[in-house]
Amino acid sequence: MRSMATEGRTIVPAREGRAVRVAAGQRLSVVDLEGGQVGDVFAFVPVPEGTGEAAAPPEHLSAAHTRAVTNRLFPEAGQRFVTDRRRPVLTLVSDTSPGFHDMLIPACDPARYAALGAAGGHASCADNLRRALAGTGLSVPYTPQPVNVFMRIPVEHDGRLRWLPSASRPGDAITFQAVTDCVVVVSACPQDLVEINGGGPTALAVDLRS
Amino acid sequence: MRSMATEGRTIVPAREGRAVRVAAGQRLSVVDLEGGQVGDVFAFVPVPEGTGEAAAPPEHLSAAHTRAVTNRLFPEAGQRFVTDRRRPVLTLVSDTSPGFHDMLIPACDPARYAALGAAGGHASCADNLRRALAGTGLSVPYTPQPVNVFMRIPVEHDGRLRWLPSASRPGDAITFQAVTDCVVVVSACPQDLVEINGGGPTALAVDLRS
Repeated sequence: MRSMATEGRTIVPAREGRAVRVAAGQRLSVVDLEGGQVGDVFAFVPVPEGTGEAAAPPEHLSAAHTRAVTNRLFPEAGQRFVTDRRRPVLTLVSDTSPGFHDMLIPACDPARYAALGAAGGHASCADNLRRALAGTGLSVPYTPQPVNVFMRIPVEHDGRLRWLPSASRPGDAITFQAVTDCVVVVSACPQDLVEINGGGPTALAVDLRS
Repeated sequence: MRSMATEGRTIVPAREGRAVRVAAGQRLSVVDLEGGQVGDVFAFVPVPEGTGEAAAPPEHLSAAHTRAVTNRLFPEAGQRFVTDRRRPVLTLVSDTSPGFHDMLIPACDPARYAALGAAGGHASCADNLRRALAGTGLSVPYTPQPVNVFMRIPVEHDGRLRWLPSASRPGDAITFQAVTDCVVVVSACPQDLVEINGGGPTALAVDLRS
């Protein structure tokens, strides 16, 4: 798995994505360097070699299965995120942001930008995921629903959703601890047609430490 | 696609699943025969033959992408459900039930029942999906998050979810119209360890008409 960080800081340039291999017990922080930037976070647990399941897709962090475990719409410190096989993959350790993180909205993709009238070739979190995984040996035939850190989608009393600009400040960070070895992908969301990114798409950082 | 209904009534026995091929424009009703029974509804749009994508998984009705289109947590009459490619697949035409249908919770599966302490071999909506699709020629390497008709998962003011018994009455029906040709799978949820099925798992009916 070349060009993947082990420890230290990985910059996720604006509108791009990066994959990081995380060992069980390591902590990974997503840092909003300039503030107001949404990050789409995906996590995958590779199928162990020699299990005869090499061709199976990796387990992925699943927002829906996590909701069924936490009985909450949105993440809170201390909770675990589980995979589509209901196995814990990450724990939310701490959060210095105002605490808005979304688990309802799918990754932006070419169809989303086409519907918004963007020219072809607009970057998307789904494409960023695909590119970031290309170097990891993992192949995922679908785009799991990500955890959208720093994304502010409040739910009204009647179940209606609102899309608001991110409220995170420069340097705000959300920190996860890996329960199991996994590959985490972070996409600095390139959305510039719906005002979810306060300051226009900017870079994020991923800090990995033992 | 043998043993799949075209028009008329298909009984979905308690704890089992059935697939129905639906043509664009046809209406499909899920009927709660005895009341209090949750149905997991999946829909798939096969990749057209000759597109060179024969090996690609079919598009699936996506709860997450539908939320991003409707800006609502739960379905309401008149809305469309879209696929993971953001294309409309079903319209919610009418609903004679009290109106509680869930789009937050994943299908029950063997891991769910193992965690609940059930003996091995407990039926699940994920397994029902797999079995129901076996006769359709469709292959899906994952379990999409279903639309759980008649399932009552209210959201509290603080984002907390509650799991309540279904409130649907005998004969209550929710009716969809197909926007495009698709295969719909309905599973009569076999959950008998968490009290979401009011009267214990019972049968559903699927009525298909032009």
